Amino acid sequence: MTEEDRTYQRARTREQKNQRLDGILDATRSILDEGSYHDVTLSAIAERVGCSRANLSHYVGSKEEILLLLYIRSLREILEAMKGIDPGSLDVSSITGLEAASDALAAMLASHRDFGRLGALLTSIIETNVRLECLVECKREIIGMMADGSSLLVERGLFDELADSTRFLMDLSDYVAGLYPATHPLPIQRAACKETGYPILSYEESLRDFLTVQLVGYKVLKEKRDDS
Amino acid sequence: MTEEDRTYQRARTREQKNQRLDGILDATRSILDEGSYHDVTLSAIAERVGCSRANLSHYVGSKEEILLLLYIRSLREILEAMKGIDPGSLDVSSITGLEAASDALAAMLASHRDFGRLGALLTSIIETNVRLECLVECKREIIGMMADGSSLLVERGLFDELADSTRFLMDLSDYVAGLYPATHPLPIQRAACKETGYPILSYEESLRDFLTVQLVGYKVLKEKRDDS
Repeated sequence: MTEEDRTYQRARTREQKNQRLDGILDATRSILDEGSYHDVTLSAIAERVGCSRANLSHYVGSKEEILLLLYIRSLREILEAMKGIDPGSLDVSSITGLEAASDALAAMLASHRDFGRLGALLTSIIETNVRLECLVECKREIIGMMADGSSLLVERGLFDELADSTRFLMDLSDYVAGLYPATHPLPIQRAACKETGYPILSYEESLRDFLTVQLVGYKVLKEKRDDS
Repeated sequence: MTEEDRTYQRARTREQKNQRLDGILDATRSILDEGSYHDVTLSAIAERVGCSRANLSHYVGSKEEILLLLYIRSLREILEAMKGIDPGSLDVSSITGLEAASDALAAMLASHRDFGRLGALLTSIIETNVRLECLVECKREIIGMMADGSSLLVERGLFDELADSTRFLMDLSDYVAGLYPATHPLPIQRAACKETGYPILSYEESLRDFLTVQLVGYKVLKEKRDDS
């Protein structure tokens, strides 16, 4: 047992374990906020939490598992925030109303950075370096949240059919995986964009415009199906 | 000079150099076709081309530069294929016409796999491991192709305004970066999807549905702008 571990008591109850895990996720998020994915190492996380690397391994199998859990936590937060939207504030009958809904959704997604930041690394890096049982558990939770989120969008009137809202959410995740790194370039990318005049767009504004096109497209296609 | 290099003469003219580079890109593509990104190493490429690693370095700085050039070549091929679409075959006045256009575009994009396959790795992996001058040259070419592609979509009547078609192409690149890995899971991801019932969608069908929603959304928003 190291000096650090003497003050960092191992969690006994489930509640204590969840608290520890939340602390690990918070530490990882703060490392990401200050640097980039490359700065996230088990040693850096352990140092910030105040425990040893060996102690970390009681809670998670790898840094990718921590990042996966952080991504899931951000989805959970987004779902909670969506539940908090006042149904009366949404007017889905007009394009202006859909634009306002896109505005609200984009602001919410942009304020939960880990959804885009980790979504960009999810399929190509994170998911390939975790234990199968961890991935299975996370996929189960994602499936549950996708179902809740899709139902919520139908209840709020943004979609008439669950199939459409589910598809919308899946496409949104895929889009964000590409949009986040494109709107948050690393130094060499920023330098190349500057030299060539390649545009660096705003994450939130791009999301808003994208969401408007999507919501309007789905709505018009649904109306056309109803007409025929 | 190794035994291999004795038979692999160094290119003297610009034309020879381009031929060599094309051979290197073909070899890399075949390695990707048979395996994954992790199988692409300079040694594997050199072996397939029939030269030494040292000889490879006359043409490219790193494996990421090769992948970047392969991505650019695939964009070039897609642009050429788009130019070949018969304008008379497109009916943009109806939703059915836009669905047919989406069908054609999706089939074309799916047949140029490197656009999605490398697009998924582009911003997070490839672009961060190349020389600045290489990235600048590639960004310049991408800017040129984006301008040509946007103009072409306006000429073909799919968009009325360049700003819309440019934005559509940028969003398409971002979407594909997330869609490709989601529709081409690695073994552990496939296993987790199977165990949980998480859907693995078709790349081409997802592209087609996405393109339809986008084209319809942009068209309706443009009509609304014209009305007001």
